[in-house]
Amino acid sequence: MEEQQKILCVGLVCLDIINVVDKYPEEDTDSRCLSQRWQRGGNASNSCTVLSLLGAPCAFMGSLASGPVADFILEDFQKFSIDVSLMSEHAQCMSPASMVISNIRTGSRTILHMNRDLPDVTVDDFSKVTLSHFKWIHWEGRNADEQIKMIQQVETFNSKLPPHQRITISVEIEKTQEPLYQLFPHGDVVFISKDVARHFGFHSAEAALRGLYARVKKGAVLICAWAEKGADALGPDGLLVHSDAFPPETLVDTLGAGDTFNAGVLYSLSNGGSLQDALTLGCRVAGRKCGFHGYDGISQMFSGV
Amino acid sequence: MEEQQKILCVGLVCLDIINVVDKYPEEDTDSRCLSQRWQRGGNASNSCTVLSLLGAPCAFMGSLASGPVADFILEDFQKFSIDVSLMSEHAQCMSPASMVISNIRTGSRTILHMNRDLPDVTVDDFSKVTLSHFKWIHWEGRNADEQIKMIQQVETFNSKLPPHQRITISVEIEKTQEPLYQLFPHGDVVFISKDVARHFGFHSAEAALRGLYARVKKGAVLICAWAEKGADALGPDGLLVHSDAFPPETLVDTLGAGDTFNAGVLYSLSNGGSLQDALTLGCRVAGRKCGFHGYDGISQMFSGV
Repeated sequence: MEEQQKILCVGLVCLDIINVVDKYPEEDTDSRCLSQRWQRGGNASNSCTVLSLLGAPCAFMGSLASGPVADFILEDFQKFSIDVSLMSEHAQCMSPASMVISNIRTGSRTILHMNRDLPDVTVDDFSKVTLSHFKWIHWEGRNADEQIKMIQQVETFNSKLPPHQRITISVEIEKTQEPLYQLFPHGDVVFISKDVARHFGFHSAEAALRGLYARVKKGAVLICAWAEKGADALGPDGLLVHSDAFPPETLVDTLGAGDTFNAGVLYSLSNGGSLQDALTLGCRVAGRKCGFHGYDGISQMFSGV
Repeated sequence: MEEQQKILCVGLVCLDIINVVDKYPEEDTDSRCLSQRWQRGGNASNSCTVLSLLGAPCAFMGSLASGPVADFILEDFQKFSIDVSLMSEHAQCMSPASMVISNIRTGSRTILHMNRDLPDVTVDDFSKVTLSHFKWIHWEGRNADEQIKMIQQVETFNSKLPPHQRITISVEIEKTQEPLYQLFPHGDVVFISKDVARHFGFHSAEAALRGLYARVKKGAVLICAWAEKGADALGPDGLLVHSDAFPPETLVDTLGAGDTFNAGVLYSLSNGGSLQDALTLGCRVAGRKCGFHGYDGISQMFSGV
């Protein structure tokens, strides 16, 4: 039996150490957190978690240092049956972690980011990938110059295949960094964040999609999620598709909600869902996810989706 | 050749994740730390590090969970040649870490302690120790009821030996927790913190020592360090011994300074130093330690002490 083709997500994995407090610590004091959890983070890594919980075989490609953080991350990928055979390990000093201080009284989240000096995935790394193993490849926009070269390798591969066997290419432009905007014309599906939409001066998902659609390639779909306002998508037919948000009864944890939305959309589209189905599933999974800590709850809620 | 008798420290080991910043993060913001390091922490564990760097063979006794944090901790103990054969590993979920935000502008250190559900060392664990391997045993005051029973085992062992072969017993009372005050009459050497002194209403080390000396056993030495004011000690002769502090040119890192002081005192006394020698060495090592990150610098500065 041939192995099922997977979804590959290329991007970042890191460790988030989340410290839950009921009072933000004052400088130079000792206090105790209510709880602490370690969570594998990074957009592409989070999307893999959700894809896997929804039942889609997937793989992650990214770089990792060695040491105890790397061990934790690899073990957690395994826990979610995510294929990590494409990860490149960099045996150097331990990778640092991002600290999150999460105040349950106010909902505030204070993040102390790590300095991450690991190299991103390069086109050389990518050229070793057996593309026929994948039906969809998703890039979290980072080192865009290199990522475009990777995408071109996939386009070359695709050009020799009949349409139904081609790999679908998606890209996420989340951060408001000029070099990432090069990615617009390179995805069959392009995700942009509310931050990016605003950076271009748009005040709604619809306005952003209409305004930025000219940047994507012919036939592509542009998608923009807008937190509690749900998400919109625009395809080549010029029809705007919308889904409302599905907020949980109580907002518990919004960390990774965007990555969850992306995974829901990828899951649905890669299984032949319509754009409307995909947006709705993305919003449903992301909304529900905000009602509990982490991602584990997704598998129960959406089994058989 | 018989192995040299060691100093045993019984207490806590944990992981401190130290985030160096040049501005204390405001609540609900994102910022980036200048650097981050993982450091084995815990009072008894830190004192072992310093003892080892000063050249004293030592052992640590405490409990540890399994997982990546435990791996890091064990590796670090090995790096400093600290005997960990008495550690008890508890194979359960990963032990959490304490977050430290260290401000290089002000020298402040803000600690967000973990919730630690690991059991402390019990008298049963301790009864397996071959006491003849040790010349000095130091307890970091924690589960005082159990610790007193351990000390009684040492007293029984000591009672069968000539004085010069007896194990010296020291205890540290750092936290202002009522049950820890039971430990006062159980050490040959008793360390109390500035916090404890203040808790009893004293405003100087001298006042605290005079006021609390009645609590220690006959012949014991009571020691109190008072940050930039140095440290005082009081022995059975009623003479107060004092050492000034030795502040570094630039205050870089005060984390573990108290544990460093204790180790300096233990090192000196266990090598036959006078109380004045011990206090001075304790203050010197602790002061210098505040001039650099971590402990590694100690070995260069005090080689041949």
